[in-house]
Amino acid sequence: MTRTVVHRVHVEFGDCDPAGIVWFPNFFRWVDASSRHFFRACGVPPWQETVRTHGILGTPLVETRATFHRPASYGDDLEVRSSIEAWGGKSFTMVHRIVRGETLLAEIVEKRVFARRHPDDPARIQAVPAPEDFRAKCD
Amino acid sequence: MTRTVVHRVHVEFGDCDPAGIVWFPNFFRWVDASSRHFFRACGVPPWQETVRTHGILGTPLVETRATFHRPASYGDDLEVRSSIEAWGGKSFTMVHRIVRGETLLAEIVEKRVFARRHPDDPARIQAVPAPEDFRAKCD
Amino acid sequence: MTRTVVHRVHVEFGDCDPAGIVWFPNFFRWVDASSRHFFRACGVPPWQETVRTHGILGTPLVETRATFHRPASYGDDLEVRSSIEAWGGKSFTMVHRIVRGETLLAEIVEKRVFARRHPDDPARIQAVPAPEDFRAKCD
Amino acid sequence: MTRTVVHRVHVEFGDCDPAGIVWFPNFFRWVDASSRHFFRACGVPPWQETVRTHGILGTPLVETRATFHRPASYGDDLEVRSSIEAWGGKSFTMVHRIVRGETLLAEIVEKRVFARRHPDDPARIQAVPAPEDFRAKCD
Repeated sequence: MTRTVVHRVHVEFGDCDPAGIVWFPNFFRWVDASSRHFFRACGVPPWQETVRTHGILGTPLVETRATFHRPASYGDDLEVRSSIEAWGGKSFTMVHRIVRGETLLAEIVEKRVFARRHPDDPARIQAVPAPEDFRAKCD
Repeated sequence: MTRTVVHRVHVEFGDCDPAGIVWFPNFFRWVDASSRHFFRACGVPPWQETVRTHGILGTPLVETRATFHRPASYGDDLEVRSSIEAWGGKSFTMVHRIVRGETLLAEIVEKRVFARRHPDDPARIQAVPAPEDFRAKCD
Repeated sequence: MTRTVVHRVHVEFGDCDPAGIVWFPNFFRWVDASSRHFFRACGVPPWQETVRTHGILGTPLVETRATFHRPASYGDDLEVRSSIEAWGGKSFTMVHRIVRGETLLAEIVEKRVFARRHPDDPARIQAVPAPEDFRAKCD
Repeated sequence: MTRTVVHRVHVEFGDCDPAGIVWFPNFFRWVDASSRHFFRACGVPPWQETVRTHGILGTPLVETRATFHRPASYGDDLEVRSSIEAWGGKSFTMVHRIVRGETLLAEIVEKRVFARRHPDDPARIQAVPAPEDFRAKCD
């Protein structure tokens, strides 16, 4: 069974565009937060700490697919329901379902990697295998 | 031949995250701007005007797929190269290639629709066929 | 006695800049949300409703002063403590104290007006006196 | 004579709120970018470089005052006209005038400091005197 962690979002006026609905880059903002909360909820330390203990500075996104079914507007209370659906060698696939009540508004699938600074060039980042201890916590 | 319109972006400090690289929702912010500039560059009036002339208040996103190849950082000058690759009944597919010099950083494919307010409920929006005169300008 | 309404904020990774601290425009984002929550907590209807009942589409900012004492970083839980400290003819002064625990991080003072669309030009907005019924709810 | 550097901004749809006007935190976003461009235009190296050469990671904001005279909307071309009006021991005062054509939309005054990581606690930052060579470039 995959574990699902819920991240709650209250849609603000400033999250909406002149059409009065959520401007879509904000959905990615919330999904990014939810992917971090997922790890924290599973017991993985914050990235400030993992950068010291494992060299890992986060889980940058390498691919995403999103489908938007219905708009949201300000005042709405949303849930982002996040789970890891697959683990690759250095990557994992996370699925986020954004709902209002039981209405599915959007579904966003992400492929992310664990990353550290590139040893040869600190301006670049490099994918590394998911630490075993992190993965064990999330299953 | 598809027409390509280029939208230039200078990456700012505030576009970057604690890893020192562009926080990915900002790529969607730039792509959204580029999709609007595309229509303006083709001679389609701004949405403030089309809402009065055609009832059309914009082209909300219904689906997107993105692949991120390399990060960008502040000070970088990027180009978003946008083109419409296909027209559906009420939708169209736009492709955005984000490059720094000739290095491809990200590719984002969008499926968008032309939308107006729903006649029965102004809180909702509704897809409508692309106006012929708009489509003619973009080909 | 002035009424204080608390708006809670969890600082996300994406709210922080390459220095690892909250990028200051985000404080204004939270304060803007808090000013709206203040009215809702006092029983003033949401702006979607007041635009129909009173013509009022919100409370745009006309002036602000902010002092930043200490930075915040991701993972921090903050409170924005908001109150109206003075009412003018068409304006009001709101004070927001942003705290982490009992540490004051920032203080932001706002002068806002109640606004409707300008009757001669819907592209402009116009300040109007605070409706008596709104003001009574907030005292 | 104070030197003025101009930063150009094209207002995007996504910069605007449901009232159809620029959501004010975006003005701070542009002003922050303009303060950085000011230093670059004067010949101060980017912060990625100064963090190595001088330990300086940027110029965080300690105070700001803003007055908003008129709204802007999407499609507008704005100029942010920035200059340093005063130097303190460790701080400086920058004034930004945001104009559309010759119409003043907003004026934002900032007090900023040059900052490095605190030697005792890298999670904190610390104000340091403006390096002489930086200041000479900006006068």
